[in-house]
Amino acid sequence: MSYQTLSLRRDGRILYVDIDNGPLNLMTIQMVGELFDLAGKLVFDQETGVVVLGSANPEFFIAHFDLDDLFRSMNDPDVPQSKYPDINVVQALSTMWEALPQVTIGLVDGIVRGGGLEFLLATHMRFATPRSRFCLPETSGGFLPTGGGTTRLALHIGPARAREVLLSARDFSGEEAAAYGMVNRALPADGIRAYVDDLARRAAARSAGSVAAVNQVLTKVLGGAVDAQFAGFAVENEAMRALLGIPAVQEHLRKLAELQDVEHERDLPATIAGAAR
Amino acid sequence: MSYQTLSLRRDGRILYVDIDNGPLNLMTIQMVGELFDLAGKLVFDQETGVVVLGSANPEFFIAHFDLDDLFRSMNDPDVPQSKYPDINVVQALSTMWEALPQVTIGLVDGIVRGGGLEFLLATHMRFATPRSRFCLPETSGGFLPTGGGTTRLALHIGPARAREVLLSARDFSGEEAAAYGMVNRALPADGIRAYVDDLARRAAARSAGSVAAVNQVLTKVLGGAVDAQFAGFAVENEAMRALLGIPAVQEHLRKLAELQDVEHERDLPATIAGAAR
Amino acid sequence: MSYQTLSLRRDGRILYVDIDNGPLNLMTIQMVGELFDLAGKLVFDQETGVVVLGSANPEFFIAHFDLDDLFRSMNDPDVPQSKYPDINVVQALSTMWEALPQVTIGLVDGIVRGGGLEFLLATHMRFATPRSRFCLPETSGGFLPTGGGTTRLALHIGPARAREVLLSARDFSGEEAAAYGMVNRALPADGIRAYVDDLARRAAARSAGSVAAVNQVLTKVLGGAVDAQFAGFAVENEAMRALLGIPAVQEHLRKLAELQDVEHERDLPATIAGAAR
Repeated sequence: MSYQTLSLRRDGRILYVDIDNGPLNLMTIQMVGELFDLAGKLVFDQETGVVVLGSANPEFFIAHFDLDDLFRSMNDPDVPQSKYPDINVVQALSTMWEALPQVTIGLVDGIVRGGGLEFLLATHMRFATPRSRFCLPETSGGFLPTGGGTTRLALHIGPARAREVLLSARDFSGEEAAAYGMVNRALPADGIRAYVDDLARRAAARSAGSVAAVNQVLTKVLGGAVDAQFAGFAVENEAMRALLGIPAVQEHLRKLAELQDVEHERDLPATIAGAAR
Repeated sequence: MSYQTLSLRRDGRILYVDIDNGPLNLMTIQMVGELFDLAGKLVFDQETGVVVLGSANPEFFIAHFDLDDLFRSMNDPDVPQSKYPDINVVQALSTMWEALPQVTIGLVDGIVRGGGLEFLLATHMRFATPRSRFCLPETSGGFLPTGGGTTRLALHIGPARAREVLLSARDFSGEEAAAYGMVNRALPADGIRAYVDDLARRAAARSAGSVAAVNQVLTKVLGGAVDAQFAGFAVENEAMRALLGIPAVQEHLRKLAELQDVEHERDLPATIAGAAR
Repeated sequence: MSYQTLSLRRDGRILYVDIDNGPLNLMTIQMVGELFDLAGKLVFDQETGVVVLGSANPEFFIAHFDLDDLFRSMNDPDVPQSKYPDINVVQALSTMWEALPQVTIGLVDGIVRGGGLEFLLATHMRFATPRSRFCLPETSGGFLPTGGGTTRLALHIGPARAREVLLSARDFSGEEAAAYGMVNRALPADGIRAYVDDLARRAAARSAGSVAAVNQVLTKVLGGAVDAQFAGFAVENEAMRALLGIPAVQEHLRKLAELQDVEHERDLPATIAGAAR
């Protein structure tokens, strides 16, 4: 398996997948395709027990979905589209990852926003350093997170804290993300890799039968949320189509697309506020 | 809009509503009527994007439902009653506020107990200072919170912590309220207004379409709890009618009604324990 | 009521039940029988309003289910078995305790693992000292917690943190247990008894009607999880039968059964890792 946007490293039954896609680690159409391809291979890969999802970029885990590719996907007939109005490509991708037979662990030590955070919320366990920054900036651009993120956030952290994250559209630190339940816990920068490696090794040592049994119980117990999840996805899509149809929203996004560089992305909430003026 | 128990102040698309009803900020029948009236107007008010619910009283957010008015509502045929046995007036009020199209934020820097806390639990987001005190004293008087508070507490913070709050009937600090999930977070007294103002300004800047879309997804995703919520309301009502029919409970409440003053309300749990002797 | 594995002490309407079963407080078939017997008596005991479940052993709350008795229950036709494939004896026991009309409070100041932690998760409220250690070691032995623990953990603390506890199979401190929601809160060793006694006295002072009303509302509101809970139990059982049928799992358990002593149990995760070599 060799990818343009992902760096893979194997250690026994653990597969380390580092997002590695330029200075911003933008989630591009290429990356989405590669994450689908990797998930498809993992479904049949009995040698891999654990997947640790990290970043090769010291500053950005994933900046967000690439706005240039968003416009391409809206306008270029050659870009593959979901055939189903009720589930879009990132929702399908994150749900496929959520259903992997492997144990998946997200390790965040940087900036993760928008579609990147939506994808992260589909890993089975998540850890972050205090300096990490979590943000769903979409409502400040006139739309909403539509990769399953509005839905998963509500399910993971409840409506009061989900509304604060969604409507403030500000950066939340790793400590805040842990207090709100977006990640399992915050860990110091000099300890997070050891902690995640230890957890990964422990999980990798579990028998396939034990892991499958735990997954089955959790799926059964929390299965009542599955209908809710897909209903949420459908509402995300319907709203997104309506909101992206507004000329002012498109114009705002086009302005932001020109500012997709490291300097403007460091404080994206401020960049968005500036572009709205 | 001018009210006897509420002070209103507008700042752009933000409406600040301060509870302002005498030395205890008791929730009276008058206040309930005015909160209904305000909610009715807000439903059609497209100029208001955010409602910040606070208190004009430096010590009490809302002490609790006025016991004199409780007796009036039980005995005076002229007081409006709910026509439906399964939903009472405070449950209807809190549910109407919960369904407002605006973003509602509760800001607590004082004492909030009983019906006041039940109403607060229906705001979309809630913040408190450490010195704030949260209490549901009802079980110590032989009945239970019946304004939707037993139900919403179980939904917001889970059964183990809800039972501790309900059955201890003690004061919980703002820090405890945050740790248990009754509020989004605790904030220092000298920082809470700036934090809430910033959040309110951010939310007020969101387009109506974005806010509505977020509300729709959350409603869809958490909609499974709606039937549970109304079923809980019905049980609250049925139990309340039975428990208020017990002469000893009424006698205890009459004793407490005579102690509705600032001095006795500061440590209400102790006042209730004393009256029970 | 006199038991071999439980020490009982009454203080007014509070019944203190201390697990008292040898140097490890192993959950034996004898103890399970006595806990069933006690629960059966409590159902009809109107003098007891609160049950505080603690430990007479300064080091172990409950080490886990006795492995010798596990083998006996698998092989000795005289050991009583559940007649129903979808619910086993510890699931039935914990569910019976969860449904008691009394208020139940768990007080942990020591090691609680495996079946002991599964049983603890069925008390209504739980408190622990920081030095306490919480562990579900089962997956490190090739099976999974099957006393309702996989199911209740998912319901109490959500899938991301439940997976970490289940798959790491490591010891979690009382502080970690509180942060993850396994207990209401952590309390210092020199304060936990006073805190729990105060809460017990408050709960014991509540009228039977108030407590029953709170229970009814919570049952109604969270009742949607009941079907999920029993569905989870059934999956736990099915998986357990399959996994215990694997010779290597049985052999591993037989090795561990020989190490059921205080020294090896203090760091059970290390003992299990050693036995797996």
